[in-house]
Amino acid sequence: MKTILYMAMTVNGKIAGIDNDTSWTSKEDWAGFLGMCKKVGNAIIGRKTYEMVKKEGTQLGDILTVVLTREATLLAKRSTHTIFTDKQPRDVLAMLQEKGYREALVCGGGILNSAFLKEGLIDEMYIDIEPLILGRGIPLFADGDFAPHLTLLEVKTLSNSQTVQLHYKVIK
Amino acid sequence: MKTILYMAMTVNGKIAGIDNDTSWTSKEDWAGFLGMCKKVGNAIIGRKTYEMVKKEGTQLGDILTVVLTREATLLAKRSTHTIFTDKQPRDVLAMLQEKGYREALVCGGGILNSAFLKEGLIDEMYIDIEPLILGRGIPLFADGDFAPHLTLLEVKTLSNSQTVQLHYKVIK
Repeated sequence: MKTILYMAMTVNGKIAGIDNDTSWTSKEDWAGFLGMCKKVGNAIIGRKTYEMVKKEGTQLGDILTVVLTREATLLAKRSTHTIFTDKQPRDVLAMLQEKGYREALVCGGGILNSAFLKEGLIDEMYIDIEPLILGRGIPLFADGDFAPHLTLLEVKTLSNSQTVQLHYKVIK
Repeated sequence: MKTILYMAMTVNGKIAGIDNDTSWTSKEDWAGFLGMCKKVGNAIIGRKTYEMVKKEGTQLGDILTVVLTREATLLAKRSTHTIFTDKQPRDVLAMLQEKGYREALVCGGGILNSAFLKEGLIDEMYIDIEPLILGRGIPLFADGDFAPHLTLLEVKTLSNSQTVQLHYKVIK
């Protein structure tokens, strides 16, 4: 099972403003993200990210979305393309593997990213760096006791010539 | 007067660990930074960065180091290559201009970087991204109310093929 993290962030590592604003992400990042969703076939997100996606009416395409939450009202929900679960990260990946997926996509927010990283469950990362600084906001990883080293696999600019995409492998 | 920020950071935007550790920065970053110091002829740093530089016996070469501090004991110090001052960022730049410098180099820590950025005083940024994540640490910019957009001028990997250097112009 290969687990990939795909996120857009500012130059100073914020994935959203304090008001959860992500309107500054580029359409090039979004296209890359949707392509990855389609390739992997699933997306694992946290509860706040789910609510943001829902509020904005975002369509992730015909993929399985796994929402990690402890909220009873969400856990009671049933949906064709969405699973609400309070499983631990490792068990979520096992579940996806059982369903036949060979890869899993972790895509926010910072608390969820951190939960997977600190368990050593992220294998690769794609980070799209947008050309701005946000003085306040949500960090790529919520604070935690981890310090993994990475290997740079590729760096490129997306077609807008302004968004830089970093592709790393996590050294284990 | 052109003001340039030059910093090394982790992929998630930390410039040092919580213990101020920066041992993870590459020699390629350091060489680039020293080259920039030599070109610009000065370096503006905060008090904590000064103490770290002093503790480690770091040599920045034959340049003028300006240390921003409010500590009376430091402000009373006299040194050939170091100025201790409690001036505001704008006044520090005016002082350097009076001394004949055409560029100024801002290089940490996060509080100092933030003080210059929120006053609109940074013109360009060089950010060397080292291949690691730090779960805790000092951010590139201390939290503040600013959100400047940037123009990507160049992206390249340094000679170790692992450190990515981003070069931006700040849009004003």
